[in-house]
Amino acid sequence: MKVELQNVLPGEIEKRSFELIEKELTRELDPIQKPIIKRVIHTTADFSYQDSLCFSEQVVEKAMEAIKNGAVIITDTNMAKAGVNKKALQDFGGKVHCFMAEDDVAKEAKEHGTTRAVASMNKAAREYPNAIFAIGNAPTALIRLYELIKEEKINPALVIGVPVGFVNVVESKELIMTADIPYIVARGRKGGSNVAASICNALLYMAQGRKLV
Amino acid sequence: MKVELQNVLPGEIEKRSFELIEKELTRELDPIQKPIIKRVIHTTADFSYQDSLCFSEQVVEKAMEAIKNGAVIITDTNMAKAGVNKKALQDFGGKVHCFMAEDDVAKEAKEHGTTRAVASMNKAAREYPNAIFAIGNAPTALIRLYELIKEEKINPALVIGVPVGFVNVVESKELIMTADIPYIVARGRKGGSNVAASICNALLYMAQGRKLV
Repeated sequence: MKVELQNVLPGEIEKRSFELIEKELTRELDPIQKPIIKRVIHTTADFSYQDSLCFSEQVVEKAMEAIKNGAVIITDTNMAKAGVNKKALQDFGGKVHCFMAEDDVAKEAKEHGTTRAVASMNKAAREYPNAIFAIGNAPTALIRLYELIKEEKINPALVIGVPVGFVNVVESKELIMTADIPYIVARGRKGGSNVAASICNALLYMAQGRKLV
Repeated sequence: MKVELQNVLPGEIEKRSFELIEKELTRELDPIQKPIIKRVIHTTADFSYQDSLCFSEQVVEKAMEAIKNGAVIITDTNMAKAGVNKKALQDFGGKVHCFMAEDDVAKEAKEHGTTRAVASMNKAAREYPNAIFAIGNAPTALIRLYELIKEEKINPALVIGVPVGFVNVVESKELIMTADIPYIVARGRKGGSNVAASICNALLYMAQGRKLV
């Protein structure tokens, strides 16, 4: 079989990709949400995110303000942390943390018979109650955030709720959308650390004023 | 809206998830490929991987042997590297490397007008010509691997070809499947760093003899 490669310059690949995504969109998107939805499609090649991504009122404006004020991002996996563009984040004085692999978190989870994701959210709540929380893996983390909000222990600048999977994933996302906080949620089973990171990066690039499409 | 959470113990979530995946499979899977396909579905909640994952002959057996012999894993993103289970890898004396963010790679890419992904594969080829290459992002990395194989500069133990996207992604995967090496490839546009890491982890757990389902 003969495989024909397209001749695209390295610097042009992302631009060409976004043009192709634009062409294949099947619905009209809110202009301020569009760069985020397109970046998630760019990350996943999955156009179902056109329909599944849910945005609370004015969440993009609020998230960009938080980023410009140097907001800290908390992730529930080191994969998501690795995917966040650190250079862009540093431009605004922000940092990204993931506590999942830390010894005190493992210890707390064991003592309380809970997940490390829950224990890592408890630690984040103590240290960064107003952070951007980007949850791409553990529904238990998202459920714990809901409880922490209700207990008035945190007041997140934004919750990115995109865990992936089969047990309490759908439910955890519906739950967080009932809390009165800014959210971006991928309704349904799909999501992932890559999706969480790409939503962070879309917001960072928008805050930078970078042209995406 | 009232959200009803399922009461599942932390240690049971993965098990329950794999049971649900098993129930929703729509085709008969090769028993030796099945743990890999199910773990990718677990990572993505996307059942299309049942149809898109392609395996070269006896690739799982070959990959497990390489892992048991302490194979090095090379990834094309730090996200994929972050997602590989390091504890499991260390059990076999293996390591995972990603050269994408290194200064000499950026320098080589700039000098040669290529992508950092290509330069990072060149570096990997010099240092680990018999590695497992797990490509979850850059089609240019996969195309470069094909060339390096043809130039007899590398002889990979396995190529995991699961870049995601819109420009040369489909083509790069078709290309690598024409090289005479062990491969696991997600045909089409879909894939990702999370998929690359989950295939590595499925192989690691199989090599450990861990019961997955």
